[in-house]
Amino acid sequence: MKKLEEKIRECGEVRPGNILKVDMFLNHQIDPGLMEAVGQEFYRLFKDEKVTKILTVEASGIAMAIETARAFGVPMIFAKKSQSKNIDPDVYATDVYSYTHGNTNSVRVSKKYLNEDDCVLIVDDFLANGEAMNGLVRLCEQAGAKVAGCGAAIEKGFQPGGKGLRERGFHVESLAIVDEMDGDTGLLKFRQQEG
Amino acid sequence: MKKLEEKIRECGEVRPGNILKVDMFLNHQIDPGLMEAVGQEFYRLFKDEKVTKILTVEASGIAMAIETARAFGVPMIFAKKSQSKNIDPDVYATDVYSYTHGNTNSVRVSKKYLNEDDCVLIVDDFLANGEAMNGLVRLCEQAGAKVAGCGAAIEKGFQPGGKGLRERGFHVESLAIVDEMDGDTGLLKFRQQEG
Repeated sequence: MKKLEEKIRECGEVRPGNILKVDMFLNHQIDPGLMEAVGQEFYRLFKDEKVTKILTVEASGIAMAIETARAFGVPMIFAKKSQSKNIDPDVYATDVYSYTHGNTNSVRVSKKYLNEDDCVLIVDDFLANGEAMNGLVRLCEQAGAKVAGCGAAIEKGFQPGGKGLRERGFHVESLAIVDEMDGDTGLLKFRQQEG
Repeated sequence: MKKLEEKIRECGEVRPGNILKVDMFLNHQIDPGLMEAVGQEFYRLFKDEKVTKILTVEASGIAMAIETARAFGVPMIFAKKSQSKNIDPDVYATDVYSYTHGNTNSVRVSKKYLNEDDCVLIVDDFLANGEAMNGLVRLCEQAGAKVAGCGAAIEKGFQPGGKGLRERGFHVESLAIVDEMDGDTGLLKFRQQEG
């Protein structure tokens, strides 16, 4: 998605340690016009998948998830993070490790809002090691729901998350895939994609 | 806002302890059409305030904040919650007590995204005791930014948050104000408002 790649080049920061800082427009301050475009692009890419729900995890995925839900005309659900070990019997829950924060959170969705009739499009801001995305897939599996696909705004193509999900047969679409980056030189190389 | 009051009556649950459960459409599963209407209503109510930024706090406020930002054509910022005591020198930070969770979080906004040229509309899903809203006001004060107003989807009119902010001179608008509720009888009484 050209508009997103341009925004990353213009406003993102490449830092040592494979950190791509996009908090000016994606995950702290957020550009609503860009989120609307992201939602419309996910609709274009997944419109044939009979999507009934959009699922993300708090907090950075929520803005693009609500725009995606609006494009599809279906409800959005955000999984809640909790450090607590007490699992409410009325939730689907799974542990997700965060490389960014170096901790593990339980992420949960109420059983009321996911079931075997659902066909779920999972979206998130980043797909790198795939911990969050795989956690959301597990919540769908617990519910017996079908996973329509996984959509990320930015994929770090040199980390294994996207590859792993594609090898398992999931329909994965990332709007910008970074294949190479270098915090010392500022190098940022996007994978060529159609559309 | 009639549409929100109707949705609360239709899908909300009044529970003992003054709990109004709206996780079917507002803060867990989210109705994107309703969020769009909420954003447009906040625009109608605050359009003369020269708003430059929409500010909320993660996570439940984000969906309506991005729709409000889209209606105004300005960026949205969500304050991040952290239990950590280490304050990054590059953030505005303040402590916010949560009655719901019984804990105190530090909420933070990068200094890059709020400054004295900003006129900030603060929005959140609930206004009850006003802890979160007042915390967001303090972040604006730290930045030297003007507070354009405070918008809540649902205000518990029998709790002191809204009254306190209005007495301090802030322009507060709540789209549905619950003046009375009773978890035993299911009573739910909205304040009559114009518009």
